[in-house]
Amino acid sequence: MGKSYGIRGRLVWQIATVFLKLMLISCVEARIQSYKWKVKYEYKSPDCYEKLVITINGESPGPTIFAEQGNTVVVEVDNLLVTENLAIHWHGIRQIGSPWSDGANGITQCPVQPGEKFVYKFVVDKAGTYIYHAHYGLQRSSGLYGSIHVIPSDGVKEPFSYDREHTLLINDWWHKSSAEQTAGLSSIPFRWVNEPQSLLIQGRGAYNCSLVNNQLNSLGTGSICNTTNPECSPHVIPVVFGKTYRLRIASVTSLSAINFMIEGHNMTIVEADGNYVEPVVVQNLNLYSGETYSVIVKADNDPSRNYWAAVNILGRMPKTPTGTAVFNYYPNHPKKPPLTTPPNGPLWNDTNYALAQSQSLKALKGFNPGPPFSSDRAINMFFTQNKIEGFSRWSINNFSFVLPSTPYLIALKQNLPHTFDPTPPPEKYDLQNYDIHLPPKNPNASYSDSIYRLDFNSTIDIILQNTNMLDPNKSETHPWHLHGHHFWVLGHGIGVFDPVNDPKKYNLVNPVVKNTVPAFPYGWTVIRFRADNPGIWAFHCHVEAHYYLGMGVVFEEGIERVARLPKSIMGCGKSKRLARP
Amino acid sequence: MGKSYGIRGRLVWQIATVFLKLMLISCVEARIQSYKWKVKYEYKSPDCYEKLVITINGESPGPTIFAEQGNTVVVEVDNLLVTENLAIHWHGIRQIGSPWSDGANGITQCPVQPGEKFVYKFVVDKAGTYIYHAHYGLQRSSGLYGSIHVIPSDGVKEPFSYDREHTLLINDWWHKSSAEQTAGLSSIPFRWVNEPQSLLIQGRGAYNCSLVNNQLNSLGTGSICNTTNPECSPHVIPVVFGKTYRLRIASVTSLSAINFMIEGHNMTIVEADGNYVEPVVVQNLNLYSGETYSVIVKADNDPSRNYWAAVNILGRMPKTPTGTAVFNYYPNHPKKPPLTTPPNGPLWNDTNYALAQSQSLKALKGFNPGPPFSSDRAINMFFTQNKIEGFSRWSINNFSFVLPSTPYLIALKQNLPHTFDPTPPPEKYDLQNYDIHLPPKNPNASYSDSIYRLDFNSTIDIILQNTNMLDPNKSETHPWHLHGHHFWVLGHGIGVFDPVNDPKKYNLVNPVVKNTVPAFPYGWTVIRFRADNPGIWAFHCHVEAHYYLGMGVVFEEGIERVARLPKSIMGCGKSKRLARP
Repeated sequence: MGKSYGIRGRLVWQIATVFLKLMLISCVEARIQSYKWKVKYEYKSPDCYEKLVITINGESPGPTIFAEQGNTVVVEVDNLLVTENLAIHWHGIRQIGSPWSDGANGITQCPVQPGEKFVYKFVVDKAGTYIYHAHYGLQRSSGLYGSIHVIPSDGVKEPFSYDREHTLLINDWWHKSSAEQTAGLSSIPFRWVNEPQSLLIQGRGAYNCSLVNNQLNSLGTGSICNTTNPECSPHVIPVVFGKTYRLRIASVTSLSAINFMIEGHNMTIVEADGNYVEPVVVQNLNLYSGETYSVIVKADNDPSRNYWAAVNILGRMPKTPTGTAVFNYYPNHPKKPPLTTPPNGPLWNDTNYALAQSQSLKALKGFNPGPPFSSDRAINMFFTQNKIEGFSRWSINNFSFVLPSTPYLIALKQNLPHTFDPTPPPEKYDLQNYDIHLPPKNPNASYSDSIYRLDFNSTIDIILQNTNMLDPNKSETHPWHLHGHHFWVLGHGIGVFDPVNDPKKYNLVNPVVKNTVPAFPYGWTVIRFRADNPGIWAFHCHVEAHYYLGMGVVFEEGIERVARLPKSIMGCGKSKRLARP
Repeated sequence: MGKSYGIRGRLVWQIATVFLKLMLISCVEARIQSYKWKVKYEYKSPDCYEKLVITINGESPGPTIFAEQGNTVVVEVDNLLVTENLAIHWHGIRQIGSPWSDGANGITQCPVQPGEKFVYKFVVDKAGTYIYHAHYGLQRSSGLYGSIHVIPSDGVKEPFSYDREHTLLINDWWHKSSAEQTAGLSSIPFRWVNEPQSLLIQGRGAYNCSLVNNQLNSLGTGSICNTTNPECSPHVIPVVFGKTYRLRIASVTSLSAINFMIEGHNMTIVEADGNYVEPVVVQNLNLYSGETYSVIVKADNDPSRNYWAAVNILGRMPKTPTGTAVFNYYPNHPKKPPLTTPPNGPLWNDTNYALAQSQSLKALKGFNPGPPFSSDRAINMFFTQNKIEGFSRWSINNFSFVLPSTPYLIALKQNLPHTFDPTPPPEKYDLQNYDIHLPPKNPNASYSDSIYRLDFNSTIDIILQNTNMLDPNKSETHPWHLHGHHFWVLGHGIGVFDPVNDPKKYNLVNPVVKNTVPAFPYGWTVIRFRADNPGIWAFHCHVEAHYYLGMGVVFEEGIERVARLPKSIMGCGKSKRLARP
């Protein structure tokens, strides 16, 4: 065997084989970014108050995923929670060709059980700033989130320049657990978790420990709250005078709209949700939950001191202290707090200001194809706060979304019958007889797990219409996030959407492209997208409690074009028998 | 069609059919006890302190299962927890012919996922007092437990008489959640939850609210602790002078050994773990976690007042107030507390007293077959507290038990390879070179998921040997519970078991039959059972944290005789593809 080649021939052949294999490996390695994550509960003190946090490899926020456009990201998630399942959504990643990796529990997969490993695998097809977070119950609120940075392919230039970059992931934080929050949301009477105890920048905040100073920590050896705990020392943004920085800023808040600013420094918005925008100079930046931005900041102020980076709550009467990080000019000590008071940002209820900033964003010419000039189908989504059998809920066109026990992707692709209501949800609501400025006259609604089925490659408009809540004189901003897509934002307005006149004002020239968009109090927002990504995609309010309470819908498009599903996503509801480890 | 019978003939036929069906239904109904349970988290204040509790149909303890010997119990469990799976064990029920309904997560089934229903179905083959509780993580500690009462078949007399009966399920209670407790157990440094905040009788206790009086409840409308909350008014045991009562008393404590007494009343123990015992008159009753008793009490004291029923902690330095219920003589108001101080019970560390009570229990003649006079195999189980990679653990013969991701019952019955280590665990330990009165010299141990495989129908002795913990001068009582069996308790002793002389002292005449037995500090306990119940059975310390930390083993017996497994138990680990809804 083999002898006929002669010893020399064999050697050459072996060397050639090894060489080829090495080439192949290095080539493949360059294109795959692999991560192994262990997810568990740990005691942490992100805002100095000790509580259970869901960590990834011991951290919250979890590790940042760094990849190049076109790379394949592979994340093996090891669920070390004791009794809880999990699912992780890759927010802003379109999952082209991998709809089963979207991580939306009940929609694209069964949750990952304790003691099991699950592999997410997807291509990051677009340079930009993205996030990941739990998409199951209220686990995002327990700390399961992180950043995804996708840089352009080798040789591709971005339309702005900077010397270095920093990441600022913003979150709101409660001392109640996710289980406590969901139990409250599902209680009669309704128990609302109220305003967050603190705001976190890169997982660090500061709670006023004097409010709880007689509570013992879990070791019984000290206070449950300790302002000198290094886990809650402020996040530091180191800068050198004269240099230019890209800040990748994203919000994973469970509830709060956020205003971000750096004392004494303007910022230039250059990217929104992974899409380049015409540069806009701002003093402060509004971020709705699920939004990601890049801003360019020049370190051009007096370098003899540090400055506050500050986050404040917008859109709800703030009862939470300003969250801070230190914008630290070299060589000042990074822990040296500025002597100034952290800035408060704009008035929390200045809707016009907020609306104006959203409206100021335009797609950067040459980087995003514009929208089709017309749509094939317009779906009105009128959202209201409701009561169903005494429970507080949110509804779209009077239907409050509930997840079926069999994920839609599996049910539809594997033809599993009777897993959800096949009646299409309504596309309109009788606005003639409804005053959006008053609480609903009849707050009843119905539960529904039905979905919108879209013609493949058709162009869809969604008209989001905000209303008054159950309490009088109250309407809040809702950030709507679409999975599997980026969309064009055609327009925002205040009041009832006028189907005759408002479309005339749509921006069809350079609308900003996003995956998350706010619908302002008593206002409307219109988005357009092409149903060109085979899969099942959630579209929902990114306020975690609102989605939990029914404020979401699901789209099916091109299910017949979805490739064979991996068995690993199965194992719940009627997909049990299809599962494989 | 049908016309050939004539109208009258058809009518007679129809009436006869209906009559037959009715007979059949009533006959079947008498033999099946069906329950539908909804399991979820709710805010409750069992000891006046508000926290999340796992409830069944809104209650904790859950509904009592009432059945007659020979009945089939069917419980449909609807998991309404948001992100947590569950499994429920029917403690003391042998599951003859239904080993898949034992409810031990990872051993006999995959856990039930949120949004799913699971049906437990089993025959209660033995009259007596039993319990049920979660067998997954530390969910029992969150309140998922209840009572099972099995009365004898029609016409069968019990060996004692009474006028009425009452149920007293005893628990210890912490304000930390199960997730907080397990995170602490899995932390470096180890974080122990410490002594319980209160003791509950039938789900009611009393915490000293002044210790937390500035904490707000989840509604933010009052204190988190409220002694006037009706949920924590003391449990009432109503009695009428001159009448005789059977009290069914059981302990589901997570940690504590319990002493129960009724001020001014002796009790006669007549049943232990579902087995009749020779009547023993006691002033107070010791209960180790997982034990159930029936006692007979005569209401023969001064009926002009009420009396305290009291539970105190045994075996650990008590830091928890006495738990109380009101032994309420008619017509005194049930809420009228006695003016006396609730009794304290015996000294917490009087091991001899505790040992003597356990040793006083003998099987009642004529109701239990005695043990075989010899065993086929004796397994020594030497249990120690250890450190593995910095983690605190418990071990049996230096192996610390961990659950595999595929339940053993499924792995073995379906021949799924490589799901656990097939090497048998050791049956001895080198006691010659070990001083059980000192902390382990080398506290290292290994993780293991291997199991003991028993010859079917063989007689097995288990010699439990207790030792000193990691801290000097500390050894605690461990209550060991065997699934799928009741066993004979051949003997207890203090010190190192002597394999030559101690067996001579075994009680082979009338040993008490139990399913849970204590191993006392620095002591040994020997049990004997017949491996005659095909299935996979856990045997473990019933202290919830100890089992979580590895203090358990698993027995296989007659796996080849186990009938076809229901698909509903599958869906985790390597059993994913076998599952069916």
